[in-house]
Formats: sequence, C-alpha cells, structure tokens
Amino acid sequence: MVSDATSSDEMLPQADDAITRDGKTLILAYDHGLEHGPVDFEPNPETADPEQIFELATHDAVTSVAVGKGMAEAYYPSYEDDMALLAKLNGTSNMWVGEPDSAVNWSVDYAADLGADAIGFTLYGGSNHEVEMAEEFAEAQEKARANDMGVVMWSYPRGQGMKSTTDPDTIAYATRLGLELGADIAKVKYPGSPEAMQHAVEMAGPAKVVMSGGSKTDDEAFLSTVEAAVANGASGLAVGRNVFQRENPEEILDALEAVIFDEQSAEEALEGGTAPADD
Amino acid sequence: MVSDATSSDEMLPQADDAITRDGKTLILAYDHGLEHGPVDFEPNPETADPEQIFELATHDAVTSVAVGKGMAEAYYPSYEDDMALLAKLNGTSNMWVGEPDSAVNWSVDYAADLGADAIGFTLYGGSNHEVEMAEEFAEAQEKARANDMGVVMWSYPRGQGMKSTTDPDTIAYATRLGLELGADIAKVKYPGSPEAMQHAVEMAGPAKVVMSGGSKTDDEAFLSTVEAAVANGASGLAVGRNVFQRENPEEILDALEAVIFDEQSAEEALEGGTAPADD
Amino acid sequence: MVSDATSSDEMLPQADDAITRDGKTLILAYDHGLEHGPVDFEPNPETADPEQIFELATHDAVTSVAVGKGMAEAYYPSYEDDMALLAKLNGTSNMWVGEPDSAVNWSVDYAADLGADAIGFTLYGGSNHEVEMAEEFAEAQEKARANDMGVVMWSYPRGQGMKSTTDPDTIAYATRLGLELGADIAKVKYPGSPEAMQHAVEMAGPAKVVMSGGSKTDDEAFLSTVEAAVANGASGLAVGRNVFQRENPEEILDALEAVIFDEQSAEEALEGGTAPADD
Amino acid sequence: MVSDATSSDEMLPQADDAITRDGKTLILAYDHGLEHGPVDFEPNPETADPEQIFELATHDAVTSVAVGKGMAEAYYPSYEDDMALLAKLNGTSNMWVGEPDSAVNWSVDYAADLGADAIGFTLYGGSNHEVEMAEEFAEAQEKARANDMGVVMWSYPRGQGMKSTTDPDTIAYATRLGLELGADIAKVKYPGSPEAMQHAVEMAGPAKVVMSGGSKTDDEAFLSTVEAAVANGASGLAVGRNVFQRENPEEILDALEAVIFDEQSAEEALEGGTAPADD
Amino acid sequence: MVSDATSSDEMLPQADDAITRDGKTLILAYDHGLEHGPVDFEPNPETADPEQIFELATHDAVTSVAVGKGMAEAYYPSYEDDMALLAKLNGTSNMWVGEPDSAVNWSVDYAADLGADAIGFTLYGGSNHEVEMAEEFAEAQEKARANDMGVVMWSYPRGQGMKSTTDPDTIAYATRLGLELGADIAKVKYPGSPEAMQHAVEMAGPAKVVMSGGSKTDDEAFLSTVEAAVANGASGLAVGRNVFQRENPEEILDALEAVIFDEQSAEEALEGGTAPADD
Repeated sequence: MVSDATSSDEMLPQADDAITRDGKTLILAYDHGLEHGPVDFEPNPETADPEQIFELATHDAVTSVAVGKGMAEAYYPSYEDDMALLAKLNGTSNMWVGEPDSAVNWSVDYAADLGADAIGFTLYGGSNHEVEMAEEFAEAQEKARANDMGVVMWSYPRGQGMKSTTDPDTIAYATRLGLELGADIAKVKYPGSPEAMQHAVEMAGPAKVVMSGGSKTDDEAFLSTVEAAVANGASGLAVGRNVFQRENPEEILDALEAVIFDEQSAEEALEGGTAPADD
Repeated sequence: MVSDATSSDEMLPQADDAITRDGKTLILAYDHGLEHGPVDFEPNPETADPEQIFELATHDAVTSVAVGKGMAEAYYPSYEDDMALLAKLNGTSNMWVGEPDSAVNWSVDYAADLGADAIGFTLYGGSNHEVEMAEEFAEAQEKARANDMGVVMWSYPRGQGMKSTTDPDTIAYATRLGLELGADIAKVKYPGSPEAMQHAVEMAGPAKVVMSGGSKTDDEAFLSTVEAAVANGASGLAVGRNVFQRENPEEILDALEAVIFDEQSAEEALEGGTAPADD
Repeated sequence: MVSDATSSDEMLPQADDAITRDGKTLILAYDHGLEHGPVDFEPNPETADPEQIFELATHDAVTSVAVGKGMAEAYYPSYEDDMALLAKLNGTSNMWVGEPDSAVNWSVDYAADLGADAIGFTLYGGSNHEVEMAEEFAEAQEKARANDMGVVMWSYPRGQGMKSTTDPDTIAYATRLGLELGADIAKVKYPGSPEAMQHAVEMAGPAKVVMSGGSKTDDEAFLSTVEAAVANGASGLAVGRNVFQRENPEEILDALEAVIFDEQSAEEALEGGTAPADD
Repeated sequence: MVSDATSSDEMLPQADDAITRDGKTLILAYDHGLEHGPVDFEPNPETADPEQIFELATHDAVTSVAVGKGMAEAYYPSYEDDMALLAKLNGTSNMWVGEPDSAVNWSVDYAADLGADAIGFTLYGGSNHEVEMAEEFAEAQEKARANDMGVVMWSYPRGQGMKSTTDPDTIAYATRLGLELGADIAKVKYPGSPEAMQHAVEMAGPAKVVMSGGSKTDDEAFLSTVEAAVANGASGLAVGRNVFQRENPEEILDALEAVIFDEQSAEEALEGGTAPADD
Repeated sequence: MVSDATSSDEMLPQADDAITRDGKTLILAYDHGLEHGPVDFEPNPETADPEQIFELATHDAVTSVAVGKGMAEAYYPSYEDDMALLAKLNGTSNMWVGEPDSAVNWSVDYAADLGADAIGFTLYGGSNHEVEMAEEFAEAQEKARANDMGVVMWSYPRGQGMKSTTDPDTIAYATRLGLELGADIAKVKYPGSPEAMQHAVEMAGPAKVVMSGGSKTDDEAFLSTVEAAVANGASGLAVGRNVFQRENPEEILDALEAVIFDEQSAEEALEGGTAPADD
C-alpha cells in the first residue's frame, strides 16, 4: 500500500510543464504545408507566410507552436523567448497514396539543439505501418525523456481495416495508446459527443488529452465543441485551420482563451470583451 | 561426466528470482489497454484507472506487475518498494490487421533505468513476422542478461498456417521455444488438459512455465484450471482479465494465492478463509 | 511580439551563402550520366568529358557545380579554387523501373571532406518511396547543418497517383516541402506560367526557389522562361542540358548571367554584348 | 611461385581445431526442439531433457555439442570442462511457413562470453532469403574470426526454384559455398552416392565437410552411409536424431567412433567390442 | 580557369595503382564457385582446386586475383608476396531466382586486414535491387578510400526491364555508372564492336574500363576480342573461364600478356614465342 500517493496527476512525469499553463494547453499547429500542401492557405492567403503564424503564436492563449524542422530552423530563433516549441517530428505529404505512414523528418537531438520543449509524433494505429511507427515513436520518446522534453502523440487511428476514425471506441482507444506508450499528451479528434469525450479522457488516465481542431467550421460550432471537450476533461486544443483560415485569427484565439483557460461558455466567449487582450 | 550436477533447476541462471517467490509466480498483467483497448475495462470500469491495478498488485499473491512503458513511467516510481516490475517490452493494438506482429515499445536500458526486474516479450511463432520478432527477442534477451534482469516470453504461436493456437502440440512447442531461445519463463495458454500441461512443462526443461489467464471465466472453472496447471508443473499464472474484470478482484487474488502458493485445491480456495490476508 | 524581426529573409540560416551571389544562384548540374546515361551527351559529344563541364563551370555566371561523388573525386580537387561544389548525394540510373527512388551514393561527411559547400538531394513526393527518401533527406540535412553546408532539395513529385508533375498546385506543394523539411533552396520544374511561379515562390517562404532547366529548348523559349521565373521570385536556375547540349555553351551562360544577375530581359540578353565576359 | 606450400590443408586457418580431433569431427546436434519441436523427442521421450544430451555429449566420440542460446545458458556452464561448444546462432521453428529463413538468435559476442569454441550458421541457398542470410553469415563469420572461433555452415539449399535439395550437383554447390564464404566446415546432406560425396568434398577444397545425420534410419543403413561419407573424404558427421531417437544412444556413439575415428567398417563397428568404452 | 590541368588521367585518384601495371590490368577472377557453382570447373576439373588458380595468378601477366573472402582467407596469406588481391565483396549463388541481387559477403575492413589492394563490387543496374546495391557500393567505396584501396565495379545491367545486357548503349551506360559513382575501374561485357567499345571507354572518362572475359570461346575469337577492346581504349581484361577452362591456362596467359601489355595482335600472340616466360 502506498499511503502518500494522492492523485494520479502527481505521478506522471511533469515533462509537459513547458507546453501547458495551469494544466491547460493550446497548441497552435502549423504543419499543414507539409501534410496538406498550400491548398490549406487559400482561405486566408497571408497565412502561407510562416511569420504570420509565429506572430499569432505570441498570443497569450497559445502555450506552444507545433511546427516541422524547416519552420523551426527559419523562425524559432527569433521567437524563442516568446513561445514554447513543440517539434513535430514526423509527417508526410498527402501526395503519399500508400497505407498511412509518416516520415521521421527530425531527430530529437536536433530538435533539442533548436530549443524545443516537447516533441510531437503521429501514430496511425491500425495502419499497416503501425508497428514501424510505434517503434519510431518509442525511440523518439526515450530520447525526449533524456532531453527533459514533453511528448505529445498525434494518435490518429486510420488505415486498412478502420471503418471509422472518429467513433467513440476508436478515440478512447487512441487516448489509451497515448498513455500505454508513454505520451504526456494524446491529441485526438473529437469523438462526437460529450460522453464520448469524457470516456476518452478517462482512458488516458494521468495523460492529458487535447482535441484536434480539424477542418474549419463556423465560430459557434467550433467553440461549442471546444467547450464540450474541456468541460469533459480535455486539457485543451491543438488547432490550425480553425484559427488561421479565419479572417481574424486573433479574435478566435481570444475566444479560445476564454473557453479553455477562463472556463467561459462558447456563448460568453463569442460575446467577447471578457477575454484578456493580447499584450 | 559431471558428477556434481544435481538437478536441472540448479543449472538455469536464477535471473527470475526477483519475480518469483519459492519458485512460484503470479504475474498481474495489465497491458490490455494497448493490446485490446478500453473494451476490456467495461466489465469493471474502475479498472481503467491504472492506480486501481497498481494497488491490487500490492497484494501478497502478486510477484510482479507486467505493464508497458507508459504505465511504468507514470506509476512505478510510487510503487517500486511494493512490487517487482516486469517490463512488457513489445505490444501492438488490435487495430493492426496484418500478420501477428508486435512493436518494441521500450528499450531494455530504459526499462532498467526505471527499475524493472525482468522483461516480458511476445513471440508469435508461425507468424510471417516470427523471424523478425525472434531477432528482436534475441537482442532484448542479451541486454536483459547484461542488466541482470529475468526474461519472460509470451510464447503465442499464431498466424498464417496455424490451425490451432491452443492444441497440446502447439503449446508444448511454445514452451520449448522459451527454453531454446533463452527465456527463464515461458507464458503460454492452457493446453486443455492436465496431461498436455504436464507435457508442455516437461518440454520447457529448466525454464518455468506460467499459464496465461485469458478471457474471464467463472471462479470455479478458472481456479480449477489454475489448480490443474500448477499440479502439473506450471510455476504459476499470469493473469489480467480474470482478476480485474471481477467485482472483487482481491477475493480472487486471495484464492489464487491459496492455489498457487499454498497448494490448496480450487474448492478449498473458493471456500476461502485459509488464504492469508492482504496486509 | 518580436519587434526586431524585419524580413523573413533574415531569419533563414544563411547556409547557402557559398552557392549564391547577391542572393542569386546558377547551378550547373552535371549528373546526367547517372540519371539518363550517355544519351544526353549525344547532341554535343564533347560534353561527355567532365573536364569540359568543369571548365564551363569556371564561367562567372555559375555559382556552383552539382555533380556526384565520382565526378567530384576525379575533378574537384583541380577546380576547388574556382567554383563551389554542390554535392548531389542521391541519384539512380533510368534503367530503374520501380516506383521513383534514388540511391544515396555519397555520405555527407565524405562530401565535406572533399570540400563540398552544399548538398543536393532529390525527394520524389508522391512516390511509394517518399517516406524512405524523406527520412534519408532528414539525416543528410542535419549532417549538412553540422558541417555548415547548404541544403538544396530537388523537389520532384512523381510516382503512383501523381497525374501531373508540373501543374501549378504540384509545384507549389514541391517548393513548400523544401521549406517544411529544412532545405535552403528548392529546385523545381517551371510550373507553366508566371503566376504559378510566383505562387510557388511564395509558398517557399524564406527558402529560395530555383527553376530546373529541363530538356533542351531553343534560346528564346529557354531564356524567356528563365526571365519569367526570375521576375516572379525565383532565385535562379539549375541547368544542365540547356547549357551543355548547345553548340556554344558559353554563349548561353553569358545570356543567363545577364538575365539572372543583371536583370536583363531575354531579348536583351540574346542580343548579347552587355553580358560580362568570362574572364 | 610459392615453394613452401605443401598441402592445401595447411593453408586454411585452423580455427576449427577446438571442435575436431585428428582432423575428424562428430558434432552432436540438439537444436531439434527449436527447428522441429517436441515431436522429435517422441521416439525416446527422455531425450526431451537436455541434460540427457549433455551427458551423452561427454562420450569420447563427440567433438562438440551444437545447441542454441537457451540450452547453452542453462547447461554449458556445468559441462564446459567436458566438451566443446558449437553455438548454433540461427534457427527458426517449423511453424514458419514462408520461404526458408532462420532468425539470428544469438550474438557472436554473447556466444564467446559463454565459452563457445565455434559458431554454427544455416544458409538456405536458393531461398528468397539467401542474400539476407548470407549477409548475416558474413557478419557472424567475421566476428567469429575476431574471437578465434571456428565457423561451421549448415549449407542447405532449399526454397523457391530448388527441385531437389540432395542431388549431387546441389550438395557439391553447397560445400563450395562453405569454402567461398569463409566457413571452416560445411555441413551438408549425404548426396546419395560415394562418388557424389567425393565430388562434394573436393569442391570444398581445404574446408572440411561433415555429413548431416538426418532422419533416423536403421543402424546398418546409417553406419554404412557414414562409412561411405568418411571413406570419400568427409571429416565426419553432425548427428542428432540418429543418436538420440535410438533406444541406446551410447551404443551408436560407440559405433560412430569406430567408423569415424578408427576407420572401421560399418559391419565391424556394428559387431562392436573394438570401440573404446565411454569413460 | 585551371591552366595546369593537362589530362584527365592525372586527375583521378591513382587508387588503382596496386592492381595495374603501366596503366594496364589483367584480373584473374575466380569467384565462379560462388556465382555459378562447381559446373564451371567441369571442363578442367583440376581448377576446382583454388591452389591451381593461385599458382596461375603468379604469372607475370596477372596484375591481381579477384576472389571472395573464403578463398582469400585460405590462400592469400601464402601468396601475398606474389600477387595483388582484389577482394570481391559481394556475390550470390545462381540458385537465387529473385531479381538480380548480390550479398555483401565481406566487410572492407576485414578485406584490408587480409591485405587486399582493392575491392570489387557488382552493381546490377536496372534490377529492382539497384538502389539497395548502389547504397551498399557507396558505403564500401568510401571505406575503400579510407583504406587506400582501389575500387572496381562489376557494372552489369540486368533485371526487370532490361531487354539486352550487352547492347552498346547499355555498356556505355554501365561504364559511365562506374565513373559517376566513384569506381576507379569499370568491368563490363564486350559491347559487340570496336566502335561500341571505344564509346564505352569514352563514357568512363578518367576511369579505366576492363572487358569481362565471359564464357569460354576459342583462342582466336577470344584474343581477337581482347585485342579489339584494348585497341579501343580498354585497360585490359578480367578473365576466369577463358583461362582456367582451357587445357593449358598458362599458354593463354602468355598470349594475353602479349596482347594487353605488349600490344601485339591476336595473331602474333597466338604464334607465341614473343610472350615473356612465366618466371
């Protein structure tokens, strides 16, 4: 019997401290140029310029920026005092037509040299490349631990044999994979309902869960989903298109800050005003 | 002629001492979240919380807890004085639809750093990945030896060309693979009869054999099988679902302790009372 | 907020300085003997002799010569004071009939020992070998950084599932891959129109874009395309056949110098005279 | 001209001294539990116990025992003063249904640490895994040389495209592969006739050839074949089933000693009496 | 401009000095036991004995002997003062039925330890294994450079999609691959005509070209081809069967010496007398 064990939250290595604030997280992800190509910048062409995004990431709401090696090399040295870096280690263009897979584009040591605070790594559970990806994740995870970096798993079941990539059971399995394999944070798609979100969060145990923003939706639908996710245990959000494809990305960041960190409702947040200004 | 060779038991490196007691073993396995997903926790939802299991593992009957890297990182530091750690090195989600395979999610050195006493490694004999898995096992086994850690093989023939994964010949071959490849303990499914169990144990020579608990069955059927296994030479049991899917997992651990360590019959054990209390 | 960030050009590591002049670049590429075989030398048989090309590369317009290991070993020691070396690390004969792939024929360390100033690396986005090639690129890129060498990506989407390898969207994706994966310069095919070229350049952000010369065309068509590329943001040209398959390769280099470095029109350049002489 | 070269036998590194006596060899092989499973022990169930075999291997006739890592770990420390150890490095269960392949279950360095005098390595010429296996053999062979260990190749052509695995041309090719690739001893099946055996031995040049015992046959047939093999140049025998599947394994070892080391005929050896007693 | 560059021959690293004489080369190749099996020794059975070949290789005409690791280990220590060793690193039996491939049977470091002066490496351009083989070649080539060893490429296009392995374009491509990838010498089949030979030699630039002897032909045909090859720029010959399958191998070596080193015609060489005696 361990009498001094209080809560499971205390047990997990606090390796993700650098990319969370008060246990909450808002990851601004910007690897779309690799994963989807320039088409994702069409709704708001200025956002093809990475500097726009790094500027956005200085917003108080953002607890880390998730980018690939090329972006980090070119921009992070100028912004390292302003934001935490989540080094997205693997990724592949969508010209790839094979079973879901992701190239490891970045070594952990090199990411650490650039000042990264955490690593991000995609695992496609159910893909014919799952075993290979899990082994690549394992190696990166241990190197991250050696460098005192946090570990975020993009846990995205897909591939041969997966009928749905977002049903509640799949997402609950996805968060659990994060815990079982040694991630501090599992990033998953919203499983469709508050109950399913709550279940997925429980399955992650002491690991945190962040909702993936996904394709752009309207303000109300988007914020309501984030509100539901956070209300049901999610530690926050990883978001890209739902911020930078908007006309006014700072406004939605203000609203997200209100929902995630200030526990406002989506409705309150949309009414604005109460969100802290970006200083 | 070697005159001072007395029994084969003395010849085998006693590398598994840390995870046995009086030559007997009860492994509490908890890698179901990885191998099967949250569905395994549905019969007893609280057991999705790893802390419940680590608490259970403080029961006197348990000689080691078998978990993956993420679990060990999050919980073992709080429990290391209370139980031995069997680091389950490889494993894969059941979203995988290819020939049976298992990702190596954990390096032996990292497991040793976390205080693991032994490694656990799955080998799917007969799978198209058998050769690759055996080579991964070989490397892990030698690193375990270098770290004075015991070696437990989850010896599970399955895959293309295997008509049955539990017939007596298959299980006897499975335990033999453990001996031939350098495991201290071979974990196998119950081969269906006392005679088959005895044969499988003989084929393991000086290596120990533990029965795999498998899917949940009723108390009497389960304990009778364990009794038969132990009576026919098995050194004990590796169990997960047959403990944590029960309403009262501690009760079944009490009964298992009686059967495995105190050589009681299943019937006696079910009548209880004589089993030592969990202090 | 980062107040002292002025232009994105200042952010990118200036690792390509050694192979550019005033931010412009003209790469004389000569790996055709590997990629296409001797057939490419038929229009001007003397150019099968590498010495002819290395002599050509002493032309003022040329900012680097891109060759494979064998060429560099045999000739670069005699020319190292006269030109920068762009070590083309991977390449494969066109006898290869599988999905597009490219063998890594040269280690970065060996290239550095020979005095290379930058590496060149082909990535076939969309090929079934894309993931493998990207991982090879990643390793080479980091070793190049450790050796203070520039990185040029031959970003050539092709393979299963690619309907076109030159349409505007594909080329824009190709330049973006260069930026995302950590190249200083992305070498791509001309996307067919000034607007598409401009878009592709924008997608590369602070990374430079050079147009690939491609098959030989007539002087006016060729120079007009180069003019259009440069006018729309390309940093220059990587050229082989359009130089060495001509009767008078020095003349076209004179004209290219005028277009790329002196911002003359193709028409002016063809009229000649104003181009600086090759000293 | 090399005047002092006398016989080719002197040229070959004498790395196999430790596992031969007077240039003759009798390898007691006991990897059947891995390669075939417990079924091989059914004719003489006691032989499932490795200790029985290690005791047998103390017989004067036996020049080395060939076993896998698990066996060597468990028993060789007790027998290292009584016999030479031939570490059988690779092997695979017959549950494997793919093209012939063999997992490398043992590193050479680990085998050396355990006191092995030589390595044994299977090569399936003609298998779709031939190239991979040859490369694994090459690495093991060089490490064996660095450890002053002998090298025995189980040279067994089989797999796609092999019509026969025992015809004279195949066996002659098999022994030659042993010589060409750097084995000290090639272990092959009997090619069916004295002439074919002689030819196969010649093709091995200075490398030794040992006949593989194969499935159990009657005493006369077995010993006559061994007699024919030895009379035609074979250095001896590697035997398992034809010893341990017999009722009285020591008797057949007595007879084999007479045939292999004392050059008796099979008939003389069967009449017994003249064979030295096992002390 | 490099004024002191005189001839391209001076630029190439003279790494092949140890296996040439006056810029000419005659490689006695003896890897047939691996590549083809004992069938190649049937025309002259004594040549199955490697000692016969090593004795032959002491002939003045021979500038190196090309053998595999097993041969070199067993014989080269006795002959190292009499001949240069060309370590044939890769090779595979013709029992292999997959796409052309070749196992790397020998590490460069081990070859260097045995006193090898150069490495030999087969590349099957056009095979589905071309990329893999080229990468293996690249690694071996760089290690050879580090050991001051020459590099000979057996440049043999074959495999899926190759209609002819000897047409002039294929052979010209093959010699060019040698130059591009960093070989000192490219070994190719005779392309069928003097003009084609000359073209292939030109495509190799400063790298030398040696003709592969191929299957046995009659004296006049064979020597005439060698004469034509040398007259058109080949640096010599790599020969096996056309020497050792003859009744009197020394006689043909005498004649080859006359043709290759003394620039005699085939007719003159066949008349003999003028060839220097083997001392």
